[in-house]
Amino acid sequence: MRVLITVEYKGTAYCGWQRQKNALSVQEVLANAYFKLTGEKVTMHGSGRTDAGVHALGQKVHFDTSSAIPAERLPFAINPLLPQDIKVKDAKEVSKDFNARFDVKRKTYVYKFYVSPTESPMLYDFQCHLVTVPDMTLMQECAKRIVGTHDFLPFQATGGHVKSTVRTVYSIDIDKTDDQYSITVCGNGFLYNMVRIIAGTIYWCGIGKITPDDVDKAFETKDRKLLGKTLEAKGLYLAKVEY
Amino acid sequence: MRVLITVEYKGTAYCGWQRQKNALSVQEVLANAYFKLTGEKVTMHGSGRTDAGVHALGQKVHFDTSSAIPAERLPFAINPLLPQDIKVKDAKEVSKDFNARFDVKRKTYVYKFYVSPTESPMLYDFQCHLVTVPDMTLMQECAKRIVGTHDFLPFQATGGHVKSTVRTVYSIDIDKTDDQYSITVCGNGFLYNMVRIIAGTIYWCGIGKITPDDVDKAFETKDRKLLGKTLEAKGLYLAKVEY
Repeated sequence: MRVLITVEYKGTAYCGWQRQKNALSVQEVLANAYFKLTGEKVTMHGSGRTDAGVHALGQKVHFDTSSAIPAERLPFAINPLLPQDIKVKDAKEVSKDFNARFDVKRKTYVYKFYVSPTESPMLYDFQCHLVTVPDMTLMQECAKRIVGTHDFLPFQATGGHVKSTVRTVYSIDIDKTDDQYSITVCGNGFLYNMVRIIAGTIYWCGIGKITPDDVDKAFETKDRKLLGKTLEAKGLYLAKVEY
Repeated sequence: MRVLITVEYKGTAYCGWQRQKNALSVQEVLANAYFKLTGEKVTMHGSGRTDAGVHALGQKVHFDTSSAIPAERLPFAINPLLPQDIKVKDAKEVSKDFNARFDVKRKTYVYKFYVSPTESPMLYDFQCHLVTVPDMTLMQECAKRIVGTHDFLPFQATGGHVKSTVRTVYSIDIDKTDDQYSITVCGNGFLYNMVRIIAGTIYWCGIGKITPDDVDKAFETKDRKLLGKTLEAKGLYLAKVEY
């Protein structure tokens, strides 16, 4: 049977989702735990990669298994074999032609940062630390210019290899509680580092380093330099994957 | 001059506030960083101890120094010399007769827990994990019975050595966001493990293991066994110390 699981992980200790030769990945740890549980070697197919230090609240993963464990029981069986920073939240059987990567309809990422003169001992693995307080109205205006269907080429870091760089961002929501900010971005797909560049661009608008008009210009000219800097991996969360 | 600092720390990696022979304490790390900065050996006097794994949002600490660094500049000077899990939030000069421990008027602790079938990869150092959903009304009623001036002897773990076990709890506030709960306890002083026993007692009322009447009985009979279990250290935060 084919099983679809929802995985939550704190990415700090890992080289990212994707298996690598000389570093520990979330994919490898999951497959190893499943092997310990069932004796079966399976390939874990994620909805997409996450970089080193990036977290996931709802990464979706499918794999094929001949195990007799009912899918619904899998979280309780595998979680004790997983480290404390990776847990399976739920599992269900899906049809043989379901694919966790190719069938994605929408993905939601959250970028979190806090603004404070001193670094927080509690948040250092979980949020980006910034020192200048941004203007909410300017950030909202910047977000409006990004939402929509565009060629997001200037929002792509070098190293991305995709045929088309056109994507649709359905919504961007900015929330603030005390000195903590979160930028929630929902879209049909994302280029390499796109959310971290969106977050950096919104923040740079908020502190007046660039203007919302620069976003329009970047879409016209494809000039990456008109946008904000790529914010750190540790503030990024893959929140939700929808099919 | 005498300096009063506010210190925030994540307690996970430490044996607690108090210096110990064979383990690393927050007190020692702070004093070492101050020595690196000024070449001066000082004793850091905390408002009180915190146990291993317990966090502080606002621990207050005084020390005497002959350093020429203006107190207000101290956080910026010392924070780069401190590990990421300990930071000085602010500092000010106080009078020579001020004492961070003996002059305390009120302390506020927060106990945090979340209720979920699976452990959270994000919260494992920061909150206690519980599996049964508690009833808010029962928890509120239990909290009411604890507030006030009582002999808190049954709320003291063995190992406490104090003359009087009478304390006043001014308020207990219970908040809930999604599956995360926080119990905020404000009082004029606390016995050893008192807040963790208060939190455990409130939770046990919430899941029907004991009743609010058991709290009254425990105050009458001084019987520790009528109360809830001591919840884990990692959910406890020393939030505020007032003078």
